Amino acid sequence: MTEQALAIAMGDPAGIGPEVIAKSWAQRVEHELPPFFAVGDSRAVERVWSGPVARLGDPSEAIAKFDECLPVLNVEDAGEIVPGVPDGDGARCALHSLELAVGLVRSGAARALVTGPVSKTQLYGIGFQYPGQTEFVAERCGIAGQNAVMMLAGPSLKVVPITTHVPLSAVAAMLTVDLIVAKGRATARGLARNFGILRPRLAFAGFNPHAGENGALGREEIEVLEPAIAQLRSEGIEASGPYPADTMFHPRARAKYDAALCCYHDQALVPLKTLHFDEGVNITLGLPLVRTSPDHGTAFDIAGTDQADPGAMIAAIAMAGAAAAHRAASGS
Amino acid sequence: MTEQALAIAMGDPAGIGPEVIAKSWAQRVEHELPPFFAVGDSRAVERVWSGPVARLGDPSEAIAKFDECLPVLNVEDAGEIVPGVPDGDGARCALHSLELAVGLVRSGAARALVTGPVSKTQLYGIGFQYPGQTEFVAERCGIAGQNAVMMLAGPSLKVVPITTHVPLSAVAAMLTVDLIVAKGRATARGLARNFGILRPRLAFAGFNPHAGENGALGREEIEVLEPAIAQLRSEGIEASGPYPADTMFHPRARAKYDAALCCYHDQALVPLKTLHFDEGVNITLGLPLVRTSPDHGTAFDIAGTDQADPGAMIAAIAMAGAAAAHRAASGS
Repeated sequence: MTEQALAIAMGDPAGIGPEVIAKSWAQRVEHELPPFFAVGDSRAVERVWSGPVARLGDPSEAIAKFDECLPVLNVEDAGEIVPGVPDGDGARCALHSLELAVGLVRSGAARALVTGPVSKTQLYGIGFQYPGQTEFVAERCGIAGQNAVMMLAGPSLKVVPITTHVPLSAVAAMLTVDLIVAKGRATARGLARNFGILRPRLAFAGFNPHAGENGALGREEIEVLEPAIAQLRSEGIEASGPYPADTMFHPRARAKYDAALCCYHDQALVPLKTLHFDEGVNITLGLPLVRTSPDHGTAFDIAGTDQADPGAMIAAIAMAGAAAAHRAASGS
Repeated sequence: MTEQALAIAMGDPAGIGPEVIAKSWAQRVEHELPPFFAVGDSRAVERVWSGPVARLGDPSEAIAKFDECLPVLNVEDAGEIVPGVPDGDGARCALHSLELAVGLVRSGAARALVTGPVSKTQLYGIGFQYPGQTEFVAERCGIAGQNAVMMLAGPSLKVVPITTHVPLSAVAAMLTVDLIVAKGRATARGLARNFGILRPRLAFAGFNPHAGENGALGREEIEVLEPAIAQLRSEGIEASGPYPADTMFHPRARAKYDAALCCYHDQALVPLKTLHFDEGVNITLGLPLVRTSPDHGTAFDIAGTDQADPGAMIAAIAMAGAAAAHRAASGS
């Protein structure tokens, strides 16, 4: 059986997506990257990179071309492309590229999905109705958006924010036993399927300083976190905590768990980005396919200047390849 | 003029304070530590350490003895000392030691104050009325507790939590322009006096994810942080932000400021302890004297087992010595 290549949706053609994809291809040997092809407007790559590009007639050609050229499945509708200057045509191209790449993975013509950075502002401007690419991908897979769980992963830390883009003052009311249990289950299952960790250890961060100090500094630990952790343990999941967040992320503490589940955005993202700013990968758990993306944005301010660091894209490609291999090995 | 030694209040005699003080003395040459003496029950040191101890008749003898022995100004009222088993006698001894050490620094008989870890539970048990040692020291200096600002400092990061030990849900209501401006002023002044940073750069973290994204994810940035930062700038202080907290603490970001002011406990302590778990120093700004302490507790679970890492105590002693030198040089 022929292996399939990974499909990388190029993201906004005026952002740094095309550049970091091309640079990742250039470093494919040293990082032992699995074969991949880009899906997007090949002119966006050629505008910022002088290396060899092969336009594919069909995704099945990608593996054979990968050694010699960056394979691109062309979606030529980005209009005029100016790095750093996004527009509606570029957003449409990014959306078509994403749609095509998801379809290829769903149909089996590609092995896993990696998504490049898009501009939400530009996407909303052309009528995009989803909070982000994750929810779009989830719906195309027949999964409700809220059941797709975002995990951020670096070489020494994996975090799952239980709540994400909401005002901090709204978080306490959103933290329910049901939500925490759902995130815990999806994380445990996702670690097994995508990382081959068969008995994943989940560590939950407290909401309050010192994890509430037995109620003296807040009651969310007693009222929702502890019952949720007890429920997960009763289901056979190795869940523990809630722990004081400030002592969870130094090296000796990180060695004791496989993923940290955090109550709110900054509690998860501060330690992750403090440790792994240039190599963070966003992996979506709970989907029938593997989907990763580099944990950075379009960086329009440096697009076209050859300054973009491909580290996170390289990490996203490597993680997608490894996750697909784990799924294939376990038949899940 | 003879230099004075630093006074180190030993903290709870049943905790790891005596051990880390003794280990710091043993490593005084390699870390180029300034002369210091411990204030506390010398039996607490002798119980856990076999090195040379010199009981002082008077603090002025400390400098001469320091090369050969650990100088201890004895406060012999700890009762029976069992490492790992705290009691009321030990708490009384810790409090007397603190009181004496503060007095010696206030009177000029010691150069700066370092405080070892105490048990708040034990102190409350003997009628201690302050939230912690910081407020006690502040009052002995004639400063209101709320004007003593806690800064946590490691080799590559200094943070000031604007609010500390309160439930996270109570923080938003406490964040006022007045409070933020007061903390900013004290931090700027403290960096100049204690660290010799004449034009300190203060970076403020946003309260909400993405620093509120122009109000879409919360309004604390617009309503209190931005006006407070503008006020500080109008006073000539180099204050900036509010910045998204998750992108403030990677190495390139940290190079752009001298101290990060954070809205709540975990926002400050998560990055500090993630980066500098074994070497964090608590320095109190806003006092007429220099006061530092290692950023760890009594660790009763390992007291007496020779496992305590003296890294944070060594850093606290070095920082106290350097801060005293900066103050002496500037006459402040």
